Amino acid sequence: MEQIIFTTDSSMVLAELLRGVRHEQLFIVADKHTVGFCDKLLEKVDWIPLNVAVVDCGEENKSLNSVARIWSVLSKRGARRSSILLCVGGGMVTDMGGFAASTFKRGMRCIYVPTTLLAQVDASLGGKTGINFDGLKNEIGTFKEPERVIIDVMFLKTLPVRERMAGFAEMLKHGLLSDVEYLDRLLTCDTDEPDREEFLDLLKRSIAVKNEIVILDPLEKGVRKALNFGHTIGHAIESCSVMRHENLLHGESVALGMIAELYLSVREKGFPEEIFHRVRDFIRRYYPIYPVMGYADTLCELMSHDKKNDREGLNFTLLESVGQFSVDNYCSRELVMEALRQI
Amino acid sequence: MEQIIFTTDSSMVLAELLRGVRHEQLFIVADKHTVGFCDKLLEKVDWIPLNVAVVDCGEENKSLNSVARIWSVLSKRGARRSSILLCVGGGMVTDMGGFAASTFKRGMRCIYVPTTLLAQVDASLGGKTGINFDGLKNEIGTFKEPERVIIDVMFLKTLPVRERMAGFAEMLKHGLLSDVEYLDRLLTCDTDEPDREEFLDLLKRSIAVKNEIVILDPLEKGVRKALNFGHTIGHAIESCSVMRHENLLHGESVALGMIAELYLSVREKGFPEEIFHRVRDFIRRYYPIYPVMGYADTLCELMSHDKKNDREGLNFTLLESVGQFSVDNYCSRELVMEALRQI
Repeated sequence: MEQIIFTTDSSMVLAELLRGVRHEQLFIVADKHTVGFCDKLLEKVDWIPLNVAVVDCGEENKSLNSVARIWSVLSKRGARRSSILLCVGGGMVTDMGGFAASTFKRGMRCIYVPTTLLAQVDASLGGKTGINFDGLKNEIGTFKEPERVIIDVMFLKTLPVRERMAGFAEMLKHGLLSDVEYLDRLLTCDTDEPDREEFLDLLKRSIAVKNEIVILDPLEKGVRKALNFGHTIGHAIESCSVMRHENLLHGESVALGMIAELYLSVREKGFPEEIFHRVRDFIRRYYPIYPVMGYADTLCELMSHDKKNDREGLNFTLLESVGQFSVDNYCSRELVMEALRQI
Repeated sequence: MEQIIFTTDSSMVLAELLRGVRHEQLFIVADKHTVGFCDKLLEKVDWIPLNVAVVDCGEENKSLNSVARIWSVLSKRGARRSSILLCVGGGMVTDMGGFAASTFKRGMRCIYVPTTLLAQVDASLGGKTGINFDGLKNEIGTFKEPERVIIDVMFLKTLPVRERMAGFAEMLKHGLLSDVEYLDRLLTCDTDEPDREEFLDLLKRSIAVKNEIVILDPLEKGVRKALNFGHTIGHAIESCSVMRHENLLHGESVALGMIAELYLSVREKGFPEEIFHRVRDFIRRYYPIYPVMGYADTLCELMSHDKKNDREGLNFTLLESVGQFSVDNYCSRELVMEALRQI
């Protein structure tokens, strides 16, 4: 597993990690927004980093073109396998930077500094790297963990509410996959002004839930598919929104996907209706509305491309109860349509 | 390790391996030449393969554009992780197809049918995949073995002499890395009309030498660098030749590189001069002439980009004697120039 470092001073952690590294051997990938964090992040090393690849913001730029730009900076500036690629940003930057690092000269060193809640609790952990291709999410990628993930909760102070709630959706998923007590703490948490200590505790708990599952099945052959809960429909909603140049966030799409997949769980696995209603109400209250029924055919077509599919039919991870999941369930298109109507 | 199957009837082997696979789940990558082999290769399965990605021949097409074309066929025709990518061709096709398979949905099934001697004894074995990028050989790639490598010596019957000798260069390298008796068999082998049984035996021996080294160090952190013997200079010669649209083959470049790196071995490690002269004479007799001294500066610049370099200076694997190698030797530019003059 990657080593996770919790801190409120990532510049100190980085100065420690980069001791002895020559400045020409550090490469940075960031987007146009997060590149602004880099000066502060590296203020405690005694040189100025020169090799920076800046990519455009947004899911639509998690593309082959962007990754080629990163490879090009690495190649032209003489990066080696022993050089470090420091990825500073949200899941888009860590996924794509991780992919670039895992394939450059067949693998160079890599450190993530996730700057959004979503990346801290989900994207930066577990070794999935990737880029979008032909309109499909993470169609191209590798399984490869970075050496270190530096989780600095100070980034969350300035994170916009929408971004925070998007990350919180993955924490809700971790709650659904673990136990009622943790799920309850999440559903009653003050998401507008969370207590910092309480929130850090929830975040660590969430990361532990994810790691426990990844350790059992790093290459997603079985139980790791549990982490795809909400994602078959969520990814389709997200791809649809990217195609239409709308700006639904990944976590927002997953939140909506979870409503539908919880409904499938109620219908197919006897998941408790009361908890379904509580989670659905929470999501409807805090997340954007999206007219899924207007794009129902597109969504079904997109779902059929999902990596989780290994035969005909739409493949879902469903829940029997909180903490009890079942992978590789195939649902009919009719039932999926009914589930979409719940969003 | 990948499972290697030796055969003189690959269509039978494939029919066996593909039993139970539905035709829409088989994908083929071949180049414009080797695609002609596919009908015969699949004549014993009871369906016609539909999903074929044909790439242009030649090292200059081992590119991001070509791999994007392969990904696109996979994606548009609904390939899944459980689908199979069958790579039919020389090292260019197996390296690039292997890269496409290892990154499509973070990894799909993959089978190689190497059709050249070079691919059979070297490129298809050991899990290195890759494409060229920014003029540099295999700058982007992964470590990922295919499930099976089918080695059919019947392909060698129709292989042009130049292609056969190019593959033979890697066998010579394996000879230099193993023992005097095997090296001697190679140097005295009738390369114009090799006896089939004898040649198959040499080929198996060569593959065994490579596999023994790869097993010890699959990710090339130490002893696997032995297999780079001849390749620091060889790759530079090859890249130079690609840039100039000349058509030196990989194995030919490596043969020339071995002359220079054997000379470095004589000078730095006391490698026996008599064997150096025998190998040099053999290579001078059977391989093309290339005016390396005309491009000496370009070659040095290209070498400095080599993946094997992890610090300043040019990194070489050198030999103390046949079978005794030493990795991570740094040689001065002056000595490298002197070595180039031996070619």
